[in-house]
Amino acid sequence: MTEPTTTTELPRDLHPEHHMTSSAMLQDIVIGLSDGLTVPFALAAGLSGAVASSGLVITAGLAEIVAGSIAMGLGGYLAGRTEVEHYEAEQTRERREVREVPDIERAEVDELLADMGLSAETRRLAVAELTADPEQWVKFMMKYELGLEEPDPRQAPKSAVTISSAYAVGGLIPLSAYFVTSTPAQGLVWSAAITLVCLLVFGYFKSRMTGQPPVAGALKMAVVGALAAAAAFGIARAVGGGR
Amino acid sequence: MTEPTTTTELPRDLHPEHHMTSSAMLQDIVIGLSDGLTVPFALAAGLSGAVASSGLVITAGLAEIVAGSIAMGLGGYLAGRTEVEHYEAEQTRERREVREVPDIERAEVDELLADMGLSAETRRLAVAELTADPEQWVKFMMKYELGLEEPDPRQAPKSAVTISSAYAVGGLIPLSAYFVTSTPAQGLVWSAAITLVCLLVFGYFKSRMTGQPPVAGALKMAVVGALAAAAAFGIARAVGGGR
Repeated sequence: MTEPTTTTELPRDLHPEHHMTSSAMLQDIVIGLSDGLTVPFALAAGLSGAVASSGLVITAGLAEIVAGSIAMGLGGYLAGRTEVEHYEAEQTRERREVREVPDIERAEVDELLADMGLSAETRRLAVAELTADPEQWVKFMMKYELGLEEPDPRQAPKSAVTISSAYAVGGLIPLSAYFVTSTPAQGLVWSAAITLVCLLVFGYFKSRMTGQPPVAGALKMAVVGALAAAAAFGIARAVGGGR
Repeated sequence: MTEPTTTTELPRDLHPEHHMTSSAMLQDIVIGLSDGLTVPFALAAGLSGAVASSGLVITAGLAEIVAGSIAMGLGGYLAGRTEVEHYEAEQTRERREVREVPDIERAEVDELLADMGLSAETRRLAVAELTADPEQWVKFMMKYELGLEEPDPRQAPKSAVTISSAYAVGGLIPLSAYFVTSTPAQGLVWSAAITLVCLLVFGYFKSRMTGQPPVAGALKMAVVGALAAAAAFGIARAVGGGR
């Protein structure tokens, strides 16, 4: 959330990477916090309807936070790695195509320039210039045909840490209520109250950052959390309530 | 996983959308399945070390699957919606810039064309043609300056269903072991065996699809699952073991 104003203010620096870095970081925080606030909350709420001990809710909640945090962090890391590897695979293919079927590739460059809105005459000049150097040609195809930017390999570990931390922070908020109350039912009341407030605040700011109506966004987040918790409560009571 | 060969084979159809659709779908399945196989598995494993009843593990596991499935599905939906809204916000800004600061925007078009590798003379012709029509100009800036494709609004609900289903399918696999065994300890042994095999198979095919070394990919997935489960087991035993 270091550059939350990027999408709503007229920035001084219009360099493309600027847009991307901040929305990637923001997206990671939003992903981690959304799930962290909802899943451990919903799990704890569900168990509150089925077990008699707050200790059990806390045990399950902490196990979930640890598991979710590792899985989501690593998920973020692997997704970032996959993006890097996908880029490299496509690059290898474009290099082969430029070498083996240059006429087809040249026609594709011409088609792209026509899509941009260039006239036949300007295209003739441009195609000749763009395909003069094979590496430049491949770079052009990667960026403008496939829409792939060369990904930053440092993004993957950064994403892992961001998502993972956001998930853990989000998850400890609803669980904290069970630490200071004596029964799961009391814990649930406080947990629901705290978490719904956090979801409203989180939804509000998240929407403001992306230029959406903030009140609608706040309500949306709260509804997601409430729905997940109600569903978990229902299933836990149905399976485990009799025990 | 309907078009798994897109990134490894030389496709007949090189249209950009083709690449994107299949990797978006694939990425959704991979996200859902990765977390579904690991988080409920790790939670169940963690609780197995801290509680005496398989019924409790099943109750918590099902509550987690329902909660995670709703939260992840809705997370996927909201992420897709955000992409659509982000595109619209950037488009509004580009339209304003083209109207209010056309000289700066014209210089940006020239800079982009220079980056592509066009000569000053070709650029002069191209800039004039690209900026003749304001809507075409905005479209050019969106796609080539910001690298934003107009997102498909139908992608968001599709992502929601795919991620949610993949998570539920993934989560029921490790949990199934506790249905057919009588103690959490027995459940854990079978759950770990089944899940590790699934993670190896999933990792193998996932890596093959993205053109990565499949055996390394299989081992990586299994290590993620084992780490998350071991961490959850450790924390659950530490907090809940005495109860």
